[in-house]
Amino acid sequence: MSINPRAFHLAQKPEGVPKVSDFELSDVSLKALEEGDVLVENLYMSVDPYMRGRMRFMPIGAPMFGAAVGRVLESRSPDLPEGCYVLNPHSWHSHFVETSQALTVLDPDLAPLPSYLGVMGMPGLTAWGGLLITGAYQDGETLFVSAASGAVGSLVGQIAKLKGGRVIGSAGSDEKVSQLVTQFGFDHAFNYKTADPLTELRKAAPDGIDVYFENVGGAQLEAALTHMRPHGRIPICGMIAHYNDHGEPSPGPRNLTETIYKFITLKGFVVSAFESERATFQTQMAAWIKNDDIQYKETIFEGLEAAPDAFIGLFSGANNGKMLVHLAD
Amino acid sequence: MSINPRAFHLAQKPEGVPKVSDFELSDVSLKALEEGDVLVENLYMSVDPYMRGRMRFMPIGAPMFGAAVGRVLESRSPDLPEGCYVLNPHSWHSHFVETSQALTVLDPDLAPLPSYLGVMGMPGLTAWGGLLITGAYQDGETLFVSAASGAVGSLVGQIAKLKGGRVIGSAGSDEKVSQLVTQFGFDHAFNYKTADPLTELRKAAPDGIDVYFENVGGAQLEAALTHMRPHGRIPICGMIAHYNDHGEPSPGPRNLTETIYKFITLKGFVVSAFESERATFQTQMAAWIKNDDIQYKETIFEGLEAAPDAFIGLFSGANNGKMLVHLAD
Repeated sequence: MSINPRAFHLAQKPEGVPKVSDFELSDVSLKALEEGDVLVENLYMSVDPYMRGRMRFMPIGAPMFGAAVGRVLESRSPDLPEGCYVLNPHSWHSHFVETSQALTVLDPDLAPLPSYLGVMGMPGLTAWGGLLITGAYQDGETLFVSAASGAVGSLVGQIAKLKGGRVIGSAGSDEKVSQLVTQFGFDHAFNYKTADPLTELRKAAPDGIDVYFENVGGAQLEAALTHMRPHGRIPICGMIAHYNDHGEPSPGPRNLTETIYKFITLKGFVVSAFESERATFQTQMAAWIKNDDIQYKETIFEGLEAAPDAFIGLFSGANNGKMLVHLAD
Repeated sequence: MSINPRAFHLAQKPEGVPKVSDFELSDVSLKALEEGDVLVENLYMSVDPYMRGRMRFMPIGAPMFGAAVGRVLESRSPDLPEGCYVLNPHSWHSHFVETSQALTVLDPDLAPLPSYLGVMGMPGLTAWGGLLITGAYQDGETLFVSAASGAVGSLVGQIAKLKGGRVIGSAGSDEKVSQLVTQFGFDHAFNYKTADPLTELRKAAPDGIDVYFENVGGAQLEAALTHMRPHGRIPICGMIAHYNDHGEPSPGPRNLTETIYKFITLKGFVVSAFESERATFQTQMAAWIKNDDIQYKETIFEGLEAAPDAFIGLFSGANNGKMLVHLAD
């Protein structure tokens, strides 16, 4: 079997929004398989905003990483026979050798392979746990979610709709805004680049919002604090507006005093908080998918070479739903 | 009995820090006592920062109000005989007539009368509940409290010390800073006007802080977020640095993204959240006071005329401990 293993490394520290030249693609050599190892070819990889934060702490020359789905090409492990599919942390790599214990077998019949990087995977668990556990969302409450057309945001809104809630979302283009209502069933959506968030929230939810699922920061967080009902909750999943700050970081919300009289809770989280609930989540999500209760979109870039463009595109809104790169069939 | 009932009213809406001319003192007439009413002379009144927020919503000419301790001069209620002491909401008034159901009898033997406006009253319950309930403070944790020499802050720090914690406090003068260590037993204290909060926190708590009891906002909140340990909690009691914002409010913390990877919770509260725990609190606090476990200070201005000065002094740090006004003996 002739393969040409390649991988991306960090070429230089990004300043602000990452550039293609911050990444370098080069041939890599794979170690020989030992007992228990498998050789995997990646088929799909994920790019995610959280990687921008990690890059601050990576040394120059370090390999890029993240979630990917691959197929076992060669196996010295009885657990992972040749041809089986595995979830792995070696995105940005065409091939890798790894011990079987570090990999998770995927069932391609339960859900499509790319979905394990999205709705059935990290973004799905982030949305589900952030809304229902960190956000303590209760059936029928009014929800506002920013970056609502993204992989996480579109699921957050749909889960709240399945729980009988009223759902408002924001996105960065009129096309995405329209899709939130027509495809995802949101009650109201607005373009945060052209509309005033507070005006929109007041119009769409005159009685205020109970939960703001925070993906963005900036003016939308201020509007949510102002228009939040007593005992409101703000699970903080991300603040993409601030990720590329360099030099002077941009200011935070000027109205945190709103929290006091309204007993508002803000709580940051990452998906690892919900690891113990992953099985419950996957059972629930697979049922919703089978039932056609959950819609999801993917934007798929073609070829490993396109990985930097896909990643950079996250910060300009080039994705519509989960951003993936297709590496091989 | 000849009395001269007087009270303060709101003369104009303050802009920024209130001025003496925002308040007007005038004679008032009292209604005749009906069955169940009492006539009370106030002895001590409290001034508190929260009143600044309330003034935004008061119409011009409305009577000022707040907590006070008074003595019953004349009674048509069997529950409140002449000479008994009552907690009441009619501060800024020399005398008032009120139905007995709206008043709470105080036991002058359990604790001194003025303490019911401080350590045994609203500031005490605020400190106790904000730290132990909203802040979920656990024995032995590291605490940072701002405005630490104030009525609430000095209690917060002492309660954490009684729970075996490490306590760091900030205040606005070297004299207060020194007092935090020598009188209140804090492990470390600094002057936020001359020292860098983050440098001080790193020095005093190299492993980070678990709870930041927030009274101030601004640079101290940023430093606390940066130096907070995973799963840290920030009960937001006040943000006095922002109360007098007018026109453009001052920016919030630039590093709320710290909350995400550290699972930090910020939660606003006011004392009413702990009303159901008041009896538990008072029993505990009275025992601590009797045992000499809790030190507290009072700054007492003399005479009703001084009430505006006392209130305004809160915003320039003129108080050392609970700020009160003594109205009568």
